[in-house]
Amino acid sequence: MPHTHHLRLFSAAGTCALATHIVLEEAGADYELVKVDFSLGEQGLPAFLAINPKGRVPALLGPQGVLTETPALLVYVAQIYPAACLAPLHDAFAFARLQSFNAYLCATVHVAHAHRRRGARWADDTAAQAAMQRKVAANMTACFRLIEDELLHGPWVLGDDYSVCDAYLYTISGWLEGDGVDLSQFPKVSDHAARMSRRPAVQAAEAAYR
Amino acid sequence: MPHTHHLRLFSAAGTCALATHIVLEEAGADYELVKVDFSLGEQGLPAFLAINPKGRVPALLGPQGVLTETPALLVYVAQIYPAACLAPLHDAFAFARLQSFNAYLCATVHVAHAHRRRGARWADDTAAQAAMQRKVAANMTACFRLIEDELLHGPWVLGDDYSVCDAYLYTISGWLEGDGVDLSQFPKVSDHAARMSRRPAVQAAEAAYR
Repeated sequence: MPHTHHLRLFSAAGTCALATHIVLEEAGADYELVKVDFSLGEQGLPAFLAINPKGRVPALLGPQGVLTETPALLVYVAQIYPAACLAPLHDAFAFARLQSFNAYLCATVHVAHAHRRRGARWADDTAAQAAMQRKVAANMTACFRLIEDELLHGPWVLGDDYSVCDAYLYTISGWLEGDGVDLSQFPKVSDHAARMSRRPAVQAAEAAYR
Repeated sequence: MPHTHHLRLFSAAGTCALATHIVLEEAGADYELVKVDFSLGEQGLPAFLAINPKGRVPALLGPQGVLTETPALLVYVAQIYPAACLAPLHDAFAFARLQSFNAYLCATVHVAHAHRRRGARWADDTAAQAAMQRKVAANMTACFRLIEDELLHGPWVLGDDYSVCDAYLYTISGWLEGDGVDLSQFPKVSDHAARMSRRPAVQAAEAAYR
């Protein structure tokens, strides 16, 4: 199986592409990393827009074409590397719980975070962007309160079994400090992050950006 | 199979829950509709928060518990009603394309729309919320330009085969007029909406809110 899926992951430091990167490492996937330098604006240049017209990472290029959007990529890697057991692929309800968690992270939590530095997406004037920034810590705190109390079953997101959700949660919980949120108020999330940071796959992925 | 999956869909008029509603109709699912009255703020009352602590619709209650988030629900219904052929369940790449489309709608397009009337989520002051509102039409236009040119393969979103993506696209394209966007500039999306509106499943779902 692995030999039929040579993949190229387009990623950038500090982005949600880390989640897919970790999952590729967990799967032992046959992939290469292509770093897109956001400091040079490479994500907006024609060469990258030909890969992903959204001008975002992650993008995953394989023999059948390009795929984008973290929730799609995480499940795709889990499906093409089933031996890695990264998702409950044969239980529709359990799979839906995984999908629900990932959708919450991408559509609510990542969006809440993005209002800190990407406010220009949603308002042109700088006073409005500053108003958005002032609310980021409170919104991220509310999101992680829900994660801590309701969504993170423990020890892993879905319970006993590690899954792609864990890589995604770890990626976004890594943004809390920069968002002005004290992670220590969420002991389950803190413990999760500490355990994740010791996994070889996580260390391998993070080392690629140093 | 259908008899083992009695479901209750918590929905509200004018929300993205319509997508899941349409898909339940397409599947011939055994479900009942529970309307949450947003005009009365029912989504924030303890009775509903016990169902979904996020205070949002859709929520889907089945024998195994509650599920939330549209992309999760759409795939769940497709999986538990495989005979309805609402998703390419046995082709990882095609499934990832479906997931990518749904993730774009939930994390980018729905979010762009939400800045019109839900700006208080992301900024407290009313001037900032007004600034967000002024950018909604431009953002929704940009999103639907990408959908028209890149993502809607035609005649259905994924190409020849109807899928859950079509119900989701139809739901959100129905918001364009209210967002100040002229749908006629997107002929493929317009044609898609017209074909969708003639499907019995769509008509049955929409009739439930009249």
